Amino acid sequence: MKLFHYWRSSASYRVRFALNWKGLACELVHLNLLTGESETPEHRKRNPMGYVPVLETEQGYLAESLAIIQWLEDKYPEPTLIPRDPWLKARAWMLAEIINAGTQPLVNLNPAQLHSDDPAEQKRWTQHWIQNGLHAYETLVAPTAHTFSMGETLLLPDICLIPQVYGAIRNEVDLSAFPTVKRIYENALKTPACQKASPEAHKPPDF
Amino acid sequence: MKLFHYWRSSASYRVRFALNWKGLACELVHLNLLTGESETPEHRKRNPMGYVPVLETEQGYLAESLAIIQWLEDKYPEPTLIPRDPWLKARAWMLAEIINAGTQPLVNLNPAQLHSDDPAEQKRWTQHWIQNGLHAYETLVAPTAHTFSMGETLLLPDICLIPQVYGAIRNEVDLSAFPTVKRIYENALKTPACQKASPEAHKPPDF
Repeated sequence: MKLFHYWRSSASYRVRFALNWKGLACELVHLNLLTGESETPEHRKRNPMGYVPVLETEQGYLAESLAIIQWLEDKYPEPTLIPRDPWLKARAWMLAEIINAGTQPLVNLNPAQLHSDDPAEQKRWTQHWIQNGLHAYETLVAPTAHTFSMGETLLLPDICLIPQVYGAIRNEVDLSAFPTVKRIYENALKTPACQKASPEAHKPPDF
Repeated sequence: MKLFHYWRSSASYRVRFALNWKGLACELVHLNLLTGESETPEHRKRNPMGYVPVLETEQGYLAESLAIIQWLEDKYPEPTLIPRDPWLKARAWMLAEIINAGTQPLVNLNPAQLHSDDPAEQKRWTQHWIQNGLHAYETLVAPTAHTFSMGETLLLPDICLIPQVYGAIRNEVDLSAFPTVKRIYENALKTPACQKASPEAHKPPDF
């Protein structure tokens, strides 16, 4: 397997985290989003959206982080990231999509830049959407979370949440309104799988 | 089951379509997004994001259309909307997420309105993101699509694509660049499940 990724991409961080959690070896190929390396004709053959992450498998290319993680889950079921029970599975997908569809797409570089040329306005836009998503996530998990979002076991929602919280901190979002989210983040950071997946662990020398 | 929905919401259309495809009965409760009925404290108890659709089940509330459809798939597996083969399942999720995470979140009313007060600029913004998503979708499915995106069987990606094309037409996006997408849309519209799920079939009398 080969993963095309970017060190600070939230969705790349998710896939690196899932790979590490399952103990899977994967060749990493870094594409510099800031110089347009994901928007070349060559990369658009891998993913016509021009985004990372993309996983190269023996069967072909897979884009979209949650599709990649679903595939990893089916090929390498242990440790489980997606619950088998239908209700818990649906809850896991709901929490994951609150980040994956409800939050991160609006925070990406492209929409923020299309929204405004002004860095201060880009930051306000980014903070607004991150706060909106984390507020919903906090409300939903506060009554039942333990070490992680759905109990003692790290699952798909946590894989999505951690990179979003990294982005929140980077964008100076005040986390004090989200104590459960903050606790889950701190617990995840204690795991070697998360540490090895973190942007800092993949920062290229020229950044 | 009870579905809280809005007639023109893309994600609501997806869930109505999936329910009809599986032949499931469901009570529908219309919330008027334009007057803020989804952002009341009462609805935020169902979904703290303040969005529709939300499915009320015996086990609780479920938000996020793809989480709802995954739950329907597990509870009512036939006819299948999510392939069982791991590679085809991953492809289905990839295509679905190109719409669900890569396109629709940017097209929603809230981001368009936060982006600009000017209706013409809102329309340009909306058209840009729809074209971006449909271009990727077209490129990925053109080589293999038949009646529907992944062959002769209607699946999760089609459930996501059809409401997006409805939105594209509403926003005057030229579909001639997306002939495969257009063909899939026309084929889906021939099915009673799609017709009964369409916004027009759910337009309240006061609209």
